[in-house]
Amino acid sequence: MELDPRSAGAEEGAPPVWRPSGLVTLTTDFGLQDPYVGIMKGVVHRACPGVTCIDLSHEIAPQDVATAGFFVAHSWNYFPVGTVHVAVVDPGVGSKRAILVAEEAGHAFLAPDNGLLDAVLGADAQVFTLDEDRFALPERSSTFHGRDVFAPAAGALAGGLAPAAAGEPRPGWLPSERDDPVRGVGTGGSIETEVVLVDRFGNLISGLDVGRLALDLGEWTVEAGGRLIPCAGTYTEVAPGEPLALVDSYGHLEVAVRDGDAARELNLGRGAVLTLRRRM
Amino acid sequence: MELDPRSAGAEEGAPPVWRPSGLVTLTTDFGLQDPYVGIMKGVVHRACPGVTCIDLSHEIAPQDVATAGFFVAHSWNYFPVGTVHVAVVDPGVGSKRAILVAEEAGHAFLAPDNGLLDAVLGADAQVFTLDEDRFALPERSSTFHGRDVFAPAAGALAGGLAPAAAGEPRPGWLPSERDDPVRGVGTGGSIETEVVLVDRFGNLISGLDVGRLALDLGEWTVEAGGRLIPCAGTYTEVAPGEPLALVDSYGHLEVAVRDGDAARELNLGRGAVLTLRRRM
Amino acid sequence: MELDPRSAGAEEGAPPVWRPSGLVTLTTDFGLQDPYVGIMKGVVHRACPGVTCIDLSHEIAPQDVATAGFFVAHSWNYFPVGTVHVAVVDPGVGSKRAILVAEEAGHAFLAPDNGLLDAVLGADAQVFTLDEDRFALPERSSTFHGRDVFAPAAGALAGGLAPAAAGEPRPGWLPSERDDPVRGVGTGGSIETEVVLVDRFGNLISGLDVGRLALDLGEWTVEAGGRLIPCAGTYTEVAPGEPLALVDSYGHLEVAVRDGDAARELNLGRGAVLTLRRRM
Repeated sequence: MELDPRSAGAEEGAPPVWRPSGLVTLTTDFGLQDPYVGIMKGVVHRACPGVTCIDLSHEIAPQDVATAGFFVAHSWNYFPVGTVHVAVVDPGVGSKRAILVAEEAGHAFLAPDNGLLDAVLGADAQVFTLDEDRFALPERSSTFHGRDVFAPAAGALAGGLAPAAAGEPRPGWLPSERDDPVRGVGTGGSIETEVVLVDRFGNLISGLDVGRLALDLGEWTVEAGGRLIPCAGTYTEVAPGEPLALVDSYGHLEVAVRDGDAARELNLGRGAVLTLRRRM
Repeated sequence: MELDPRSAGAEEGAPPVWRPSGLVTLTTDFGLQDPYVGIMKGVVHRACPGVTCIDLSHEIAPQDVATAGFFVAHSWNYFPVGTVHVAVVDPGVGSKRAILVAEEAGHAFLAPDNGLLDAVLGADAQVFTLDEDRFALPERSSTFHGRDVFAPAAGALAGGLAPAAAGEPRPGWLPSERDDPVRGVGTGGSIETEVVLVDRFGNLISGLDVGRLALDLGEWTVEAGGRLIPCAGTYTEVAPGEPLALVDSYGHLEVAVRDGDAARELNLGRGAVLTLRRRM
Repeated sequence: MELDPRSAGAEEGAPPVWRPSGLVTLTTDFGLQDPYVGIMKGVVHRACPGVTCIDLSHEIAPQDVATAGFFVAHSWNYFPVGTVHVAVVDPGVGSKRAILVAEEAGHAFLAPDNGLLDAVLGADAQVFTLDEDRFALPERSSTFHGRDVFAPAAGALAGGLAPAAAGEPRPGWLPSERDDPVRGVGTGGSIETEVVLVDRFGNLISGLDVGRLALDLGEWTVEAGGRLIPCAGTYTEVAPGEPLALVDSYGHLEVAVRDGDAARELNLGRGAVLTLRRRM
């Protein structure tokens, strides 16, 4: 009796079968003024003809590893199973920092071993250290491993190579606790969190995952910059120009101004403290 | 005798046969710093494997519905028949505003019912109200219908669903008159129009569609900001640094500065009045 | 005995066989706020269904022909053989300037005949003047040949038309000497070069191709803005915030600040002189 290879992943302890979707997402701090991102895509295509590359963001502030992690963590699950997610915010490029390759829920992830994937991977992730020498282009620079290492490895994964076959198990990998940056619970049951991201619209996105805390925003108001801000279900529940707090599309607590720019109009930015207070 | 399905669209009153090209264009005010556009593409790919997404623009100013309409109106016809054009500038997201799905000349269009498509669709368009519940992702946010409604619907259209099958006829749809924003015809036969768009080069693009008015620019000069500007056929007809007025690639009257930035050098912007005067 | 068509290119004097990869790269100064780039892609797809377009950069400063050439010169070889590289920085659009189509090492190139390809093509390039009338859209504007001429020609090349069949040999084409902008060799064997590009990170990229001069940077220090800067192999060899000079991913001499922005912190930009001095 022969094993059906398609069922191999179902066996106890067997690695899941890697079925690439042919998609690769790219998240970097390379910007779009230079050809760095385009060059990476060229190398991915050389390694995997027919692949489709999709940009998540390349306008992450230089070296901002945390935002790259936030973006990938809140995006990957909207892509088809079998997608390869590559994130290169890599202040340690050229040093001995390792590169991680991981698999979770049928998706593959590739990023420097610098904490970027801490907020992305969960308890079920399989995490490996990439065998860089096996994938690197013949002339490897010391400054652009996005092109010289990540891109050829991503192409190999998109072409069918399983993450587990791309390196050795990463020793000591522990899924992070992924504490929400809730800064403390004050007197009277108030909750403090902080702004982790200001988006294109000037929305102030906090680290507080509303669903995870099972909060009903209707029972709270938000204090930000000395101002009390009502919670609402959607932008149009307040008048144009008025601030509101709501659950945003990341599932996080967000302070916004309807048809306006909350960061500018409230003069708040990343790191600003938001305090939830129970309504009387 | 069997009907030839390929000829079904030719029958009197029968809806045209929808033949998708596999392309989806995206026009939003989401910007490129956040992963919003990439996430939309992920959802489109989940709904329609093998699709190709093409960005028209995501740097439209937040809430600038008119510019989104201008961009789609002047772009769609350069794409293959069967392309799905998605435009999401959506200040009313989360409210009860409807979403339109339309078909014209073998192309499909998807946008909020907020006037965005007024400048896009012509008298022959078939216009429907999207059945949102049928396409929405299971967990629909109140702030990001680009991801939760538009993207899965776009994927369905790109995969073969005809626009007419995606909703109910929109009651009361009337093709807009699409008046050019010509502000009046003054004494001596002068024509006033205004700047509706400043492009990347600082070119001042007016609302005046030169071909529609059958104007011969050689018979006119343009007054802008108190300055008389000669009309020319192409940039190189004037010296570097000199202003000129010409028919631009949208077919509209444009004021430019050769090898320069007219908006900056003439200190004019959106809403500025351009007056055409007949040459003596 | 029949000729093996696959060997036709190997015959003495026979043109190489053009085998398109299905990829088209785009490099322009059109920016991303307007739909110009998206429209070009639409036209490419109309001419060649199934093509894949990849952006190199569209944020080149208006009219900056030299940077467009630098970007293409340092990118094309990372793409699969058979890729069509289109570069449109075209101050002479609408005038009688010609368009070049070229083939080198199995890649195709399309750009205005304004010097853009000087830094791209080598001695083995075959260079032709594009037969524009054959490819132009029926209504050719005088301001947007990216859409009206370059895009349909690029689609034809990507679909299989050989560059040699797209025009006539360009009379008088001579491969440029491609002198590195080394401004002179001073007393004591110092070498002067200058900054040709400031990238997204603020890295100061010089015109000096380190490999071509066979320099060992370990024997030199760099003077820039009155400051002596040590050479290093990679960013992490100096402390955060400290400047260094290194061979960058283009193979050129670059002055950077670790985890910082050299252009801002050293107050230097394009055209700044870098002087290499032999270490004592």
